[in-house]
Amino acid sequence: MALPVLLLLLLVADGLRAAERSGGSSSSAMEELATEKEAEESHRQDSVSLLTFILLLTLTILTIWLFKHRRVRFLHETGLAMIYGLIVGVILRYGTPSTSGHDKPFGCSQDRPFTTLLVNVSGKFFEYTLKGEISPGKIHNVEQNDMLRKVTFDPEVFFNILLPPIIFHAGYSLKKRHFFRNLGSILAYAFLGTAVSCFIIGNLMYGVVKLMKLVGQLSDKFYYTDCLLFGAIISATDPVTVLAIFNELHADVDLYALLFGESVLNDAVAIVLSSSIVAYQPTGENTHAFDAAAFFKSVGIFLGIFSGSFMMGAVTGVVTALVTKFTKLHCFPLLETALFFLMSWSTFLLAEACGFTGVVAVLFCGITQAHYTYNNLSVESRSRTKQLFEVLHFLAENFIFSYMGLALFTFQKHIFSPIFIIGAFIAIFLGRAAHIYPLSFLLNLGRRHKISWNFQHMMMFSGLRGAMAFALAIRDTATYSHQMMFSTTLLIVFFTVWIVGGGTTPMLSWLNIRVGVDPDQDPPPTNDSFQVLQGDGPDSESRNRTKQESAWLFRLWYSFDHNYLKPILTHSGPPLTTTLPSWCGLIARCLTSPQVYDNQEQLREEDSDFILNDGDLTVTYGDTTITANGSSGPHTATTSLDGRRTKSSSEEALERDLGGTDHEVTSRGTRLVFPLEDNA
Amino acid sequence: MALPVLLLLLLVADGLRAAERSGGSSSSAMEELATEKEAEESHRQDSVSLLTFILLLTLTILTIWLFKHRRVRFLHETGLAMIYGLIVGVILRYGTPSTSGHDKPFGCSQDRPFTTLLVNVSGKFFEYTLKGEISPGKIHNVEQNDMLRKVTFDPEVFFNILLPPIIFHAGYSLKKRHFFRNLGSILAYAFLGTAVSCFIIGNLMYGVVKLMKLVGQLSDKFYYTDCLLFGAIISATDPVTVLAIFNELHADVDLYALLFGESVLNDAVAIVLSSSIVAYQPTGENTHAFDAAAFFKSVGIFLGIFSGSFMMGAVTGVVTALVTKFTKLHCFPLLETALFFLMSWSTFLLAEACGFTGVVAVLFCGITQAHYTYNNLSVESRSRTKQLFEVLHFLAENFIFSYMGLALFTFQKHIFSPIFIIGAFIAIFLGRAAHIYPLSFLLNLGRRHKISWNFQHMMMFSGLRGAMAFALAIRDTATYSHQMMFSTTLLIVFFTVWIVGGGTTPMLSWLNIRVGVDPDQDPPPTNDSFQVLQGDGPDSESRNRTKQESAWLFRLWYSFDHNYLKPILTHSGPPLTTTLPSWCGLIARCLTSPQVYDNQEQLREEDSDFILNDGDLTVTYGDTTITANGSSGPHTATTSLDGRRTKSSSEEALERDLGGTDHEVTSRGTRLVFPLEDNA
Repeated sequence: MALPVLLLLLLVADGLRAAERSGGSSSSAMEELATEKEAEESHRQDSVSLLTFILLLTLTILTIWLFKHRRVRFLHETGLAMIYGLIVGVILRYGTPSTSGHDKPFGCSQDRPFTTLLVNVSGKFFEYTLKGEISPGKIHNVEQNDMLRKVTFDPEVFFNILLPPIIFHAGYSLKKRHFFRNLGSILAYAFLGTAVSCFIIGNLMYGVVKLMKLVGQLSDKFYYTDCLLFGAIISATDPVTVLAIFNELHADVDLYALLFGESVLNDAVAIVLSSSIVAYQPTGENTHAFDAAAFFKSVGIFLGIFSGSFMMGAVTGVVTALVTKFTKLHCFPLLETALFFLMSWSTFLLAEACGFTGVVAVLFCGITQAHYTYNNLSVESRSRTKQLFEVLHFLAENFIFSYMGLALFTFQKHIFSPIFIIGAFIAIFLGRAAHIYPLSFLLNLGRRHKISWNFQHMMMFSGLRGAMAFALAIRDTATYSHQMMFSTTLLIVFFTVWIVGGGTTPMLSWLNIRVGVDPDQDPPPTNDSFQVLQGDGPDSESRNRTKQESAWLFRLWYSFDHNYLKPILTHSGPPLTTTLPSWCGLIARCLTSPQVYDNQEQLREEDSDFILNDGDLTVTYGDTTITANGSSGPHTATTSLDGRRTKSSSEEALERDLGGTDHEVTSRGTRLVFPLEDNA
Repeated sequence: MALPVLLLLLLVADGLRAAERSGGSSSSAMEELATEKEAEESHRQDSVSLLTFILLLTLTILTIWLFKHRRVRFLHETGLAMIYGLIVGVILRYGTPSTSGHDKPFGCSQDRPFTTLLVNVSGKFFEYTLKGEISPGKIHNVEQNDMLRKVTFDPEVFFNILLPPIIFHAGYSLKKRHFFRNLGSILAYAFLGTAVSCFIIGNLMYGVVKLMKLVGQLSDKFYYTDCLLFGAIISATDPVTVLAIFNELHADVDLYALLFGESVLNDAVAIVLSSSIVAYQPTGENTHAFDAAAFFKSVGIFLGIFSGSFMMGAVTGVVTALVTKFTKLHCFPLLETALFFLMSWSTFLLAEACGFTGVVAVLFCGITQAHYTYNNLSVESRSRTKQLFEVLHFLAENFIFSYMGLALFTFQKHIFSPIFIIGAFIAIFLGRAAHIYPLSFLLNLGRRHKISWNFQHMMMFSGLRGAMAFALAIRDTATYSHQMMFSTTLLIVFFTVWIVGGGTTPMLSWLNIRVGVDPDQDPPPTNDSFQVLQGDGPDSESRNRTKQESAWLFRLWYSFDHNYLKPILTHSGPPLTTTLPSWCGLIARCLTSPQVYDNQEQLREEDSDFILNDGDLTVTYGDTTITANGSSGPHTATTSLDGRRTKSSSEEALERDLGGTDHEVTSRGTRLVFPLEDNA
């Protein structure tokens, strides 16, 4: 996935080249030749600058192999990528001769910049597009550091090209089972936790800024909203290093689920949070002061954007599922894969087009695709899609990290302020602490399977910052405050990725967290957060109200998902004829795919995420429906009866028998158990 | 692979957006808000315009499925893509409201346009980059057709993003066996043929242009070089449609090989040809007239660029092979795939950086990768890389074709001249005829397995133009003549893809060309172009000198490849200890991978491209070396002896025995036969 970026760079350059040519080709032959020449030159430079990136990635890959081969764990591949990036950055900064394009300042008296300029050069019109503002002091840099500018490309690249595949892959390769088992806690950490740490960090940093003002270290404006933005930016953890090591060592699956789930979701939260803080626009002359109305407005924006993006992702996922189910596309894996790819990609664009956050949409799209569409894909497409996104994810991630290393030297607006940096480190530490420990305490009230102290310490420790923080920070580096924030974020990312990443293995052993666990093995029933429905009839009247809510919601959701969504969207699940009320038996039979009747086996696998293997904990399908939504008990009975009746009315007695047996199989085959986060 | 382009579009837009924001953020809050708003707006527009592309591709995919499902053959997927493109183009052209960014013509008295403008807007400096010239008449279009401009992106995209994966895939998925069997003819068709048709078409078109001048249809300059360029552009055939149908029907393998090989190579030839025609710069005031010196110069350029690109591709392929052989990278398929991908991509950049043609380099890189690296990859990576490039190829191709459809309406500088178009159609027909029939006649003098009349007619018929012609034509549409050439090329592509693509199946049956052939089955030995070496000792003194050359070259090449390159670069091939002269036995043992001794089986498969299956046609390994390069007969003998001796000197008697037996196995195991294009 580094490819598009490289391509992009190449292209930006080529646009230029093409432009120059088309500009030149209308002038005389000699000039044309000259233009050609220098176009060639610039083109060559671009290719070279891209080659450096590729070289970087290639080097990284080879070293990663070496490390994996030698089982080196103190430095993760991402850390490596950054180091190589640093080295190349230094070389580019101090090694390359400064080439200068023939640029020239222009006078003009306007209030706001134009998107496009049409310049009349001796009768010919040339079109120019706005590239951005340069502070007057930097003009000479613009003229000189041509190479540097070439390798420091548009920050939006990270959002529009590199992050989507990473995030989509995260959603697509989600270990549903352990994720859903801890969903409550994960949501708590991701939403409350991130918000908490955002505000704590924001306020602490505001204090730091005030201090800097006193000391006279602050040479330009730094508003409270900027501090909050910094809080939002830096609250996005991505323990990619830690999780990689967890995977290698097979560390505790629940801890893995907690960390992974939190990091994936709080990326999303952080994006939306930061964009709604940017949208926070107090009215009146006294801007950047606190304003309740504006505050609630931006909270509203937060909720709106988040739910909107969520819906967007879910919808496109569902559409893909329907298409893949009702067309026989799976006979042509190539087409299938291409479609899957395009649909997933379009999610991003759709969201952006509707003003939501593409990255968030892509995340939930990935989850939906994995949950529904995946079941409809042909075996080949399954592996294809997985591998495709795996490769994209890998390349994108390593590219981002090596680019970070590069940025430390090639980015031309760094502002390193010792106080701010030290303050930031303290702030993120406190923020993380204030986020993990209290929340875990609260959650432990509700959780049967407590989050033990060593788990909490581990989560505290592995709150390292990565790609997302960087992408958020680089997104807008126009003002003084944003530049300072960017530089600080960069340092924090370096520090956490190297130190924390390196310290994971010792930390694990020091906190004696069990490793070498088979992820598919079930933890002993005692410390298990799942529950049979009949069993927790009384429990459901536990005091923890909100928890109770969620539990109830989950129950409803799962039964709905299993009885209606899965059968409608995939070839798995129980036949709709048995789950839908009698009066829509026709639609039911239309929507139910014939495969359903004979792939109960597959169903069992697919669903195993929600099913416990020990027999005593399972209930038969019928009961479940009954317990799921109270009134539907007799309902189901009649349904099945009607199902039979309608059948018999339309088909032969033989088929009725078959139908009957099928239905028997179904009732026996499908087993469903609901997860409850909370029964003390 | 449409992805990068989409991304790119998104990005170009986002650059703008970011720029606008960074421009705005330094002005007051209200303005900032305003800028934000319109940035959002433009961003939304971009996303929408990208969505149209994705929609196009998705539609195409679904319809392709429907067609495949219903076995519809009269319209190929590429034709489909174009139709959808056309429809959307019409909608965009006449359906969308014309939105206008606030552009403004600027006065300035300079001779040549700047690459970059720095505009001083009330103290702030904004940077603008040159986008290209607009003829004064079009200024209002620039202001109005915002949406249209958004969907008609930089032509270089085709060269730098879309073509490489297509071409690489062509090289990587090359059916080596039938390709190499017909290599002589293929090279003849690709090089001579393309050159011939280029010049014939060029001259005919010059006649047409003269005619237009007489009739007064020509409103601007149209030089002889332009005509030649047109010839080069339009000589690039890509019978993708035909070959797809051949694949489906399992048409004759040799015909397939001829058509495929020709199209792949003549794409490369056409690129280099056109760029060397562009480079053709007669000295003195009388430009664009014929100038022998300049002519030979550009011929030199042609040869230089072509061989350079070839070398570049081969070298990177070899490097990848070495890396994958000597590192144990195949334990980590993901890393392996990523590396493979990056190396293949870097070929393109390397070539561009060195001033060669990236696309050509990528083609030969693909062939090398398939021939050597492929053997070193882990099973997973093999399927991964294949599938990855298959998907990229598929997306890129369909994107190009749907874009062609779009371009017919969204491209804003069309010049349709009836005379020129009709002339062009006649010219390409004659050019194709003058290319196929005479060459086939000449080749048939040399070929034992004649190219029959119906084959020649089929080749004549399938000379349709596609992606490459379009990409070459759109590359430079600055001048009047180039615009006319572009419009004409577009129409030719439409016509040939639809009519010829649709007519393939009837044509096949009409020419009664055998279909339903198993590609791996051997044609009867009588009409076979392979030969055992001993057999053609006398034949090699055939009169056809040049042919003889090539045959001799092939023999040399194959023995070299088989005895030295394969063992050095891959885990297959005979152990070097047996092939290299005694004095470098040590290096031989270092370079030979231990696997070699025990994967003779694999070797046999790998090599089966050059091996006939009927036993009587095979020679043992020893003999081959002898016959390959005369003097080395005794040589090999000694080698093997020395091989034993050095072994015994260094190892145990037991091992010697093993080595002995191993070596026996080798001598028996490996069988080699050389293809000869020519023995009457």
